[in-house]
Amino acid sequence: MARTVIYERVALIGLGLIAGSMGLRMKRDGLAGEVVGTARSAKTRDMAVGLGLCDRVTDTAAEAVQDADLVVLCVPVGAMEDVAREIGPHLKPGATVSDVGSVKRAVAEAIGPHLPDGVDFIPAHPLAGTEHSGPESGFPELFDNRWCLLTPVTDSPDAVERLTRFWRAMGSNVETMDADHHDLVLAVTSHAPHLIAYTMVGVADDLRRVTDSEVIKYSAAGFRDFTRIAASDPVMWRDVFLNNKDATLEILGRFTEELFSLQRAIRKGDGEMLHEYFTRTRAIRRGVIEAGQDTDKPDFGRGTKP
Amino acid sequence: MARTVIYERVALIGLGLIAGSMGLRMKRDGLAGEVVGTARSAKTRDMAVGLGLCDRVTDTAAEAVQDADLVVLCVPVGAMEDVAREIGPHLKPGATVSDVGSVKRAVAEAIGPHLPDGVDFIPAHPLAGTEHSGPESGFPELFDNRWCLLTPVTDSPDAVERLTRFWRAMGSNVETMDADHHDLVLAVTSHAPHLIAYTMVGVADDLRRVTDSEVIKYSAAGFRDFTRIAASDPVMWRDVFLNNKDATLEILGRFTEELFSLQRAIRKGDGEMLHEYFTRTRAIRRGVIEAGQDTDKPDFGRGTKP
Repeated sequence: MARTVIYERVALIGLGLIAGSMGLRMKRDGLAGEVVGTARSAKTRDMAVGLGLCDRVTDTAAEAVQDADLVVLCVPVGAMEDVAREIGPHLKPGATVSDVGSVKRAVAEAIGPHLPDGVDFIPAHPLAGTEHSGPESGFPELFDNRWCLLTPVTDSPDAVERLTRFWRAMGSNVETMDADHHDLVLAVTSHAPHLIAYTMVGVADDLRRVTDSEVIKYSAAGFRDFTRIAASDPVMWRDVFLNNKDATLEILGRFTEELFSLQRAIRKGDGEMLHEYFTRTRAIRRGVIEAGQDTDKPDFGRGTKP
Repeated sequence: MARTVIYERVALIGLGLIAGSMGLRMKRDGLAGEVVGTARSAKTRDMAVGLGLCDRVTDTAAEAVQDADLVVLCVPVGAMEDVAREIGPHLKPGATVSDVGSVKRAVAEAIGPHLPDGVDFIPAHPLAGTEHSGPESGFPELFDNRWCLLTPVTDSPDAVERLTRFWRAMGSNVETMDADHHDLVLAVTSHAPHLIAYTMVGVADDLRRVTDSEVIKYSAAGFRDFTRIAASDPVMWRDVFLNNKDATLEILGRFTEELFSLQRAIRKGDGEMLHEYFTRTRAIRRGVIEAGQDTDKPDFGRGTKP
């Protein structure tokens, strides 16, 4: 692959799994002239340098964004506003500011007011992750064949085109959409399923007194998959739910309604209804596989850390 | 591995994923003198012979059990009673009858009354499977390091010991327990999670008119995993829910209660409660990995069909 620098200097604010993977990919493929990183903890900053995911680290976000052409906020959604307030006065005119948060309306509203004129603001959400957190969990292939959704605030087509090129170079497919629409789609495909998995794992934990450790010992397909989902970063997910409240509650409302109707079918012994329902959901699985968002292999089509 | 015949003749009634994998393992390791199979459909019977998972097939279950030392019912839970009624008069004295159904109390009650005296009845449940069905999806390693739970009805320790040896030779860990206890544990670890996944996928399907095919296109971690669970065999799962009604409804009741309390926390913006909850569920994940029932690799520790 030809090495093409897309941004001369990139600043990563927050150095977790996503930033770590971005840094490794940029360094591997020469997508940035220089990658500067910062994180609140000195230990994380040292680790980032040691892992080679950025060229240098700074103690503060204000320093990190100095002369940066692209600034990516990779902190939990609830921390975005403080970071934006800190970096606002230090941004280079013409810089692009983006983020990797899982909700987009609330993030746009938290960051936007702190950005000066002459900066292009393009919130982004790479649909990628694993159950692990921290820069040491990152790997350069994390974004391969995953979607990155942009919800641009800027009016500049050039800035959007450049960030699109950047994410394509990271391995992603890129699409642009409205922030509210993003939040509704993600409530269905990610936020509600996560809350449900967290809930079921919590229920099982309560029952451990009844069944001792058997719930874990005999953890079968189903629960085992839920525990994986429910092992995701607690701070990130707290912030997701607090910042995509309406769409998540709306989907959970529909979910409960539907669950009650299936419970009633079980109670009444309505096998026909159950069979029809399960046949329909099976067909959806085929759609997901055909859309290339999973394979029918047991590795779930996920990128594996080599 | 030394080839030790454990049962001289084994009859597999029903030839799906589980029976297919059992047959391939028995043939590979020489665990049975002869493996006889039967299935309702002629196409499935022909396929089973072609795949080499049994030595011969018969048109009826009554013929298949002739002179068999071990008879394993591998049909959906709802079909167990009819099969038991058919084979009862043809069983060899001293034979062991078992099954692979996902619920144990209802299965024991459906099969038991049709078995003659002098036959050892030991219901069993191998906790193994994939999202695929049919004998062509079987592979001999399916049971490796998975649990097989026995809920013996027979008083013969020898018969139980022999079936335990058989399942260990299939690669499983084996434990014996009471049928009701089995059904409660499985309601938590498998049945309720499956119903929940089916429900969430159904909700997403309803929403496709709103969000077009985006729910599938942007199918992220979470929903994607749910679609896998919700792709399991519809007949098998209909029968599971109809036959483990009380335990499943009990767990779903607790689940809904808990979900409501998390929904309320989201609505009220109680970040502390959410963070605490998600931290607790993350710890449970570690327990599952430590128990060897999953790995932290993206393949979920599942056996992969080679």
